[in-house]
Amino acid sequence: GFAQVDMHRALRKGFPEVIFGAGKTPEQVVGIATKILESEERVLVTRIQEEHARALRKKFKKAIHHSVARCVTLEKSPHTKRPGTIAVVCAGTSDLPVAEEAAVTAEIMGNTVDRIPDVGVAGLHRLFGRLELIQSANVIIVVAGMEGALPSVVAGMVSKPVIAVPTSVGYGASFGGLAALLGMLNSCGSGVTVVNIDNGFGAGYAASQINALVEQNMKSVV
Amino acid sequence: GFAQVDMHRALRKGFPEVIFGAGKTPEQVVGIATKILESEERVLVTRIQEEHARALRKKFKKAIHHSVARCVTLEKSPHTKRPGTIAVVCAGTSDLPVAEEAAVTAEIMGNTVDRIPDVGVAGLHRLFGRLELIQSANVIIVVAGMEGALPSVVAGMVSKPVIAVPTSVGYGASFGGLAALLGMLNSCGSGVTVVNIDNGFGAGYAASQINALVEQNMKSVV
Amino acid sequence: GFAQVDMHRALRKGFPEVIFGAGKTPEQVVGIATKILESEERVLVTRIQEEHARALRKKFKKAIHHSVARCVTLEKSPHTKRPGTIAVVCAGTSDLPVAEEAAVTAEIMGNTVDRIPDVGVAGLHRLFGRLELIQSANVIIVVAGMEGALPSVVAGMVSKPVIAVPTSVGYGASFGGLAALLGMLNSCGSGVTVVNIDNGFGAGYAASQINALVEQNMKSVV
Amino acid sequence: GFAQVDMHRALRKGFPEVIFGAGKTPEQVVGIATKILESEERVLVTRIQEEHARALRKKFKKAIHHSVARCVTLEKSPHTKRPGTIAVVCAGTSDLPVAEEAAVTAEIMGNTVDRIPDVGVAGLHRLFGRLELIQSANVIIVVAGMEGALPSVVAGMVSKPVIAVPTSVGYGASFGGLAALLGMLNSCGSGVTVVNIDNGFGAGYAASQINALVEQNMKSVV
Amino acid sequence: GFAQVDMHRALRKGFPEVIFGAGKTPEQVVGIATKILESEERVLVTRIQEEHARALRKKFKKAIHHSVARCVTLEKSPHTKRPGTIAVVCAGTSDLPVAEEAAVTAEIMGNTVDRIPDVGVAGLHRLFGRLELIQSANVIIVVAGMEGALPSVVAGMVSKPVIAVPTSVGYGASFGGLAALLGMLNSCGSGVTVVNIDNGFGAGYAASQINALVEQNMKSVV
Amino acid sequence: GFAQVDMHRALRKGFPEVIFGAGKTPEQVVGIATKILESEERVLVTRIQEEHARALRKKFKKAIHHSVARCVTLEKSPHTKRPGTIAVVCAGTSDLPVAEEAAVTAEIMGNTVDRIPDVGVAGLHRLFGRLELIQSANVIIVVAGMEGALPSVVAGMVSKPVIAVPTSVGYGASFGGLAALLGMLNSCGSGVTVVNIDNGFGAGYAASQINALVEQNMKSVV
Amino acid sequence: GFAQVDMHRALRKGFPEVIFGAGKTPEQVVGIATKILESEERVLVTRIQEEHARALRKKFKKAIHHSVARCVTLEKSPHTKRPGTIAVVCAGTSDLPVAEEAAVTAEIMGNTVDRIPDVGVAGLHRLFGRLELIQSANVIIVVAGMEGALPSVVAGMVSKPVIAVPTSVGYGASFGGLAALLGMLNSCGSGVTVVNIDNGFGAGYAASQINALVEQNMKSVV
Amino acid sequence: GFAQVDMHRALRKGFPEVIFGAGKTPEQVVGIATKILESEERVLVTRIQEEHARALRKKFKKAIHHSVARCVTLEKSPHTKRPGTIAVVCAGTSDLPVAEEAAVTAEIMGNTVDRIPDVGVAGLHRLFGRLELIQSANVIIVVAGMEGALPSVVAGMVSKPVIAVPTSVGYGASFGGLAALLGMLNSCGSGVTVVNIDNGFGAGYAASQINALVEQNMKSVV
Ligand SMILES: Nc1ncnc2c1ncn2[C@@H]1O[C@H](COP(=O)(O)O)[C@@H](O)[C@H]1O
Ligand SMILES: Nc1ncnc2c1ncn2[C@@H]1O[C@H](COP(=O)(O)O)[C@@H](O)[C@H]1O
Ligand SMILES: Nc1ncnc2c1ncn2[C@@H]1O[C@H](COP(=O)(O)O)[C@@H](O)[C@H]1O
Ligand SMILES: Nc1ncnc2c1ncn2[C@@H]1O[C@H](COP(=O)(O)O)[C@@H](O)[C@H]1O
Ligand SMILES: [Mg+2]
Ligand SMILES: [Mg+2]
Ligand SMILES: [Mg+2]
Ligand SMILES: [Mg+2]
Ligand SMILES: [Mg+2]
Ligand SMILES: [Mg+2]
Ligand SMILES: [Mg+2]
Ligand SMILES: [Mg+2]
Repeated sequence: GFAQVDMHRALRKGFPEVIFGAGKTPEQVVGIATKILESEERVLVTRIQEEHARALRKKFKKAIHHSVARCVTLEKSPHTKRPGTIAVVCAGTSDLPVAEEAAVTAEIMGNTVDRIPDVGVAGLHRLFGRLELIQSANVIIVVAGMEGALPSVVAGMVSKPVIAVPTSVGYGASFGGLAALLGMLNSCGSGVTVVNIDNGFGAGYAASQINALVEQNMKSVV
Repeated sequence: GFAQVDMHRALRKGFPEVIFGAGKTPEQVVGIATKILESEERVLVTRIQEEHARALRKKFKKAIHHSVARCVTLEKSPHTKRPGTIAVVCAGTSDLPVAEEAAVTAEIMGNTVDRIPDVGVAGLHRLFGRLELIQSANVIIVVAGMEGALPSVVAGMVSKPVIAVPTSVGYGASFGGLAALLGMLNSCGSGVTVVNIDNGFGAGYAASQINALVEQNMKSVV
Repeated sequence: GFAQVDMHRALRKGFPEVIFGAGKTPEQVVGIATKILESEERVLVTRIQEEHARALRKKFKKAIHHSVARCVTLEKSPHTKRPGTIAVVCAGTSDLPVAEEAAVTAEIMGNTVDRIPDVGVAGLHRLFGRLELIQSANVIIVVAGMEGALPSVVAGMVSKPVIAVPTSVGYGASFGGLAALLGMLNSCGSGVTVVNIDNGFGAGYAASQINALVEQNMKSVV
Repeated sequence: GFAQVDMHRALRKGFPEVIFGAGKTPEQVVGIATKILESEERVLVTRIQEEHARALRKKFKKAIHHSVARCVTLEKSPHTKRPGTIAVVCAGTSDLPVAEEAAVTAEIMGNTVDRIPDVGVAGLHRLFGRLELIQSANVIIVVAGMEGALPSVVAGMVSKPVIAVPTSVGYGASFGGLAALLGMLNSCGSGVTVVNIDNGFGAGYAASQINALVEQNMKSVV
Repeated sequence: GFAQVDMHRALRKGFPEVIFGAGKTPEQVVGIATKILESEERVLVTRIQEEHARALRKKFKKAIHHSVARCVTLEKSPHTKRPGTIAVVCAGTSDLPVAEEAAVTAEIMGNTVDRIPDVGVAGLHRLFGRLELIQSANVIIVVAGMEGALPSVVAGMVSKPVIAVPTSVGYGASFGGLAALLGMLNSCGSGVTVVNIDNGFGAGYAASQINALVEQNMKSVV
Repeated sequence: GFAQVDMHRALRKGFPEVIFGAGKTPEQVVGIATKILESEERVLVTRIQEEHARALRKKFKKAIHHSVARCVTLEKSPHTKRPGTIAVVCAGTSDLPVAEEAAVTAEIMGNTVDRIPDVGVAGLHRLFGRLELIQSANVIIVVAGMEGALPSVVAGMVSKPVIAVPTSVGYGASFGGLAALLGMLNSCGSGVTVVNIDNGFGAGYAASQINALVEQNMKSVV
Repeated sequence: GFAQVDMHRALRKGFPEVIFGAGKTPEQVVGIATKILESEERVLVTRIQEEHARALRKKFKKAIHHSVARCVTLEKSPHTKRPGTIAVVCAGTSDLPVAEEAAVTAEIMGNTVDRIPDVGVAGLHRLFGRLELIQSANVIIVVAGMEGALPSVVAGMVSKPVIAVPTSVGYGASFGGLAALLGMLNSCGSGVTVVNIDNGFGAGYAASQINALVEQNMKSVV
Repeated sequence: GFAQVDMHRALRKGFPEVIFGAGKTPEQVVGIATKILESEERVLVTRIQEEHARALRKKFKKAIHHSVARCVTLEKSPHTKRPGTIAVVCAGTSDLPVAEEAAVTAEIMGNTVDRIPDVGVAGLHRLFGRLELIQSANVIIVVAGMEGALPSVVAGMVSKPVIAVPTSVGYGASFGGLAALLGMLNSCGSGVTVVNIDNGFGAGYAASQINALVEQNMKSVV
């Protein structure tokens, strides 16, 4: 009664309904996951706590808990990865949970991910040292809190789509990530698009859709 | 003295510096355009008024004024369009200037654009009647003011990347587009990314980067 | 001393004063309920915690604890339901507590309620599958968090009054329900009215007033 | 090209698409009105200026300009009014344009309207003097700016649905109507629902839907 | 070292420095109180918790803990009360802690206080029943949360100074008392002045200054 | 029809309804003034423009236009001033219109006013030079824009009631007077009460009520 | 009467009172300037319009109008410049008026200024090309609108004090410079301090105080 | 993997990377400190809790825990202090943690610090009593919560650079320090620059950069 799982989603969107764990009990999460796995090959659960992970791993042997990312993934059989990479760049150590949520989402959706952590604008040489890896990706996710300046700098140096993720890292006038969010929306680096504060999931999902598009078009050619 | 045009931008980004006309005099705009055209094939000027358009057309015979979009474009010779289309969907008649800015930007950057205007959520059958055209695009730009609900609905029905553009259309508690912006950032339609309020230019630019990515990867295969 | 119960309210408003439990001790709540039941047939207590429910059920045998709704109701003898139904539509599983508060309020006030949960805009076919039930109601309450787009879509498809309830479900730029609230206030679906964030009680109360109006007018005719 | 009029709206909603004049040229407004009148009996245009009114009256002999309300209405033949009244109560002289927009909307939709102006809470005896008229209505629209306290007071004295309309009347910390809006959303007068700042149209529309509901149910009985 | 008590304050302001307990340890509070009592007859401590009260009562026999008001007062010998009363009116049961803080402050400063609780605008007859008592006061403090409408109504009925205190009582769009604060600042009831959200202390202090003024002028006459 | 003048106000409040000129036509203002003067000795019109002043002076010979204050006053015969003074202190030259509105309001209500302009906190010696005059007043109105620090400083040096008026003077992060308003609400100077941004009228009115209170109590003694 | 010029300011602060032209008439500005020049060697007028400049130049032969900076300066005899430079770096062409206000302020206060315009983060190579000049300054003022990322990048590369000036350049979610302001306040580049939006004057003043400090200390050594 | 310490920072900025403890585990903090101390003489850790301090002191004998400041410092050998002092002025006892963070930062960076606590504007004589000490400093840090008026007053009395630090001390309309922040940004005291709410670290860092500048210039002269 409490949920009406969208069982057509994989058809329309290419991936089954993702379970948003926040505010759900472990039982509800296990129930919805069971329902989805009746007809799907894989499932992703985000924003969970230890107890949800335990409940899921107790029920499903193959469930994997990504603890920094606060996610559980479950695949009946492994995906073959599509060509092309997604780079996940992050500004500081404290932004890692959000960056990992993006990376885990992109991986379960069939993509290869390169992680480039702790390269914030206070010491740009760290970013320049990783530039080649970044430029070789098909899509670049940039995660940053505080003033959120990193996406502008990255977008100025690449021709690939940049997805910016503001985080709630900071204090005072960061207002829970608002400063980073506004900064990214006003980026002078053309072509930057933005997702909600701390929304690593959304960035990983959008990046996967873009990378999948390349694959789809290539297939239709061959 | 007043400007230091970024003459490497086409190399790094695939398109020369775009001139932001707001707050510049017609003379400044013509000056910067002249500088860019010394080494580039095409130029885009956004957020201009009648007088800027006149000054540009007086100086450059080939300049085209897109009056609804408030843009001028100028190409020494026409681009060949890359494969794949970009759909520009908009919610109401009043959102047209922003939608046109997106469309003109995507076109000057070498893309074919399909326009689907006035299909807001108050009468969804209008959207359903255009669904095939929307689903056939590589990227979908969705422009909406007021509550900004259209991107969520579109994203629920397609597997392609959706770029949402909030507009300042509305009054009272729309707070200059804030309501639409927040709505789009909180979209429950997975994979929606967002640009600044009224930033048709940014959406067109990002969509073009995505579409170009398809082309690049296809070329590298062939 | 601490309270001056409004003992005329049922006369003026058709229903006795409702007890707002938040910030009151169990003793205060029991005290006010006792006072009201001296002269009234029924009482509704909202926003309570487990301990208030326990205290009320200890004192009053007929007290019913609606735990998802965080309410207690108590009727000396059952109401006869008035004709016509109120539909309570909700977008996601996490919106259920607010939707239930609306439903319980409407029921204790003498109305028949139809519940339509988890039909958010990310998968509209779920809504379309329940459309007939929704259209047959006299009033429709639509509960949604995040971007709050569902009331616009529902209002576009029915001719009945739609009462929208934004919830605080979401994170980041949802700003505690502000995004949903602004979205609903700016709805392009004509005839939508809005109550406070998470105010299921207010929506149920207003819906009951509307449904009662139908009954009153019908009586005056017959 | 610029608009895709929703020609099914009268079927779904009971009234044809209403034209929002703000940001449209007189030519666009006349064009859309002409299109609607091809198949509908009446049309309502809101938020217009003198020049739109002139253009409409030049084209349509029967067009009526409601100048305080900033609306034009046009009926091929007069509506028969449905039973029951809608009261439009307003706090101060400066709130009149919004109150009139509500009244004109309710009237063109087939309702009888009672106007009760300038009865704000600074001198409550003015309100008490009109109480009987207010209590005899089926629905009460209350329009107020500044602190927006009037709907709470009215709702405390009637059992009928109250629709509150905050206005942008005020200065300083009224923040363009925000103070009144927040006040109304937090009303302790149970059963108050709220529309956008200055949205007289929305209040009139919702009130008409409620009054029509009475009529529909009565018909189905008889 | 941690504090530099303002020992001249009673001279300049007529009352010694008041200790703001929030964020101070019980030891700090006792230390500052001891210092003040070296040269003063009385002391007021606000915003304390149980443990501060215990520490103060252990050290000072005459300390009185006003638990609803979250204050401690201490007088070496009782004040003679000045003529005239201060009325403390409050809208709902949940506003009591703030109302009591105002009352306790006014009393320790030498005033007689009349308390009129739970007379909010949802049932105005409760207010009318207490009107004579309110009108007989020299100053009226009105405490209200949610939409904060009560000060406007009171101010419309009296010729005495009204000090409005918004409280953080409410949820959702009350935004921690912002709705009530803005409402009171925009009051159409002339002569209303406002203090910070939940600042019962400030209201009591200002009311006492006004009442003292009467006394001072009367003395200078006699 | 457009206004329902509150003809009992002088009875309840001690002064007839004050006409808020903003958003009213000269004709409306003259009409309301005429109505009030049928039964009252004096009238105050605030927030007017040149044309309202002209219309009022044309109709009423005794009307006086206070142009800096943007007010018109009209007295059939002069008031005798009550004892005690009201000090109107202001921070900078740009705050003068608001300070004058306060002064004119207090004067027409029968008070003697001392003006102390341009003594902001950037050069405190200017304030100290006027301290005796300030301390001799019964009530002190302090008007300041930008950071609004002056009321805190004044309140620290006097024992009389201080009414703070934030102004919209400033730019950028002053956000139309919000910075000054918040500063004054958070004043560490005990006993400061606050009115709306730019609300000189409200401050003058409240100050007059306080000064009148002194007079009333003195009379009742004598 | 309207102003009380702070004639001691040069003694206390090292520079005479600066005239803020906004909201003053040309006559008032000329009057205050005349008063200051009675005892001072130089004067600075900011935020003026053409007509103020004309009035000042008519009265004072030596007045210089800095039109981009919207300032007038006047020196009876030229200052000798103190050692050390102040760098004024700006992100885009549209930020020039604010950057010039900072530069003109620093110059009239006796400093040598280096201007480095249009080196925003979208093309960082432009900044790197000017790095030596920037690093040789004693203080660096960085002016930027939109997302305001430039100060973070500059602060990461220098050991000198960086003063960040957010500008109101941008649209939509820049909210009049709020995005840039919040970005700069949250800068991860240690040692960045911030002034108000568009406050070039304040930045120039603070930079001069720092540079003067060097000079003072050096003098005291020699 | 989790961090990429910026090992060049001391070269570029004159001080090694400072560790921001908030949101890091004790292990992460010890790990980064160890890495930095491989090549640096000293390290500063800010925003830590008891357990981080314990872990650091267990690993490093010379670690010092500044508990009020919530910092740990560690120096292999003591710094020689540079000439000149930095004054840290604070308004109230509750602002001490932020003031101490500023003082500890300035000290570990090689500066002599004078502390002047609890001299807020409610009793200005306390400030005047310490004026000489304040005026003798090279840089003045002013820390204040609530309305944040102290920096304006201090800046009016000194010719040295003033760095203002707003704190989150306060309640209600202080909105977590926003009131103090806005007050300081709008300061009429020329030359005030501002850092983030509660950012004692940033103020200490900036003050040290300014004081170091004096030293550098003096050295280059000698
Ligand atoms: N208390 C503080 N407030 C603001 N920034 C800080 C603070 N302490 C350290 N930092 C900065 O935070 C950066 C480290 O961020 P992270 O990579 O997350 O460890 C350093 O470069 C410091 O400059
Ligand atoms: N309509 C637009 N909205 C946002 N950014 C734009 C727009 N048009 C151009 N730009 C960007 O503005 C930058 C130029 O800024 P400026 O130096 O002030 O001319 C270019 O790098 C563009 O990427
Ligand atoms: N969940 C709720 N949300 C908003 N208002 C409520 C709620 N429950 C009860 N109320 C109202 O709160 C008022 C009681 O307030 P109080 O005097 O504080 O108990 C009643 O008049 C109800 O109309
Ligand atoms: N300058 C002012 N600021 C705020 N309220 C005012 C002002 N002038 C008059 N008023 C109030 O506005 C009310 C009249 O409102 P209205 O009915 O719109 O004319 C009167 O009751 C006055 O108390
Ligand atoms: Mg780091
Ligand atoms: Mg349309
Ligand atoms: Mg669901
Ligand atoms: Mg009126
Ligand atoms: Mg109550
Ligand atoms: Mg001045
Ligand atoms: Mg540029
Ligand atoms: Mg203190």
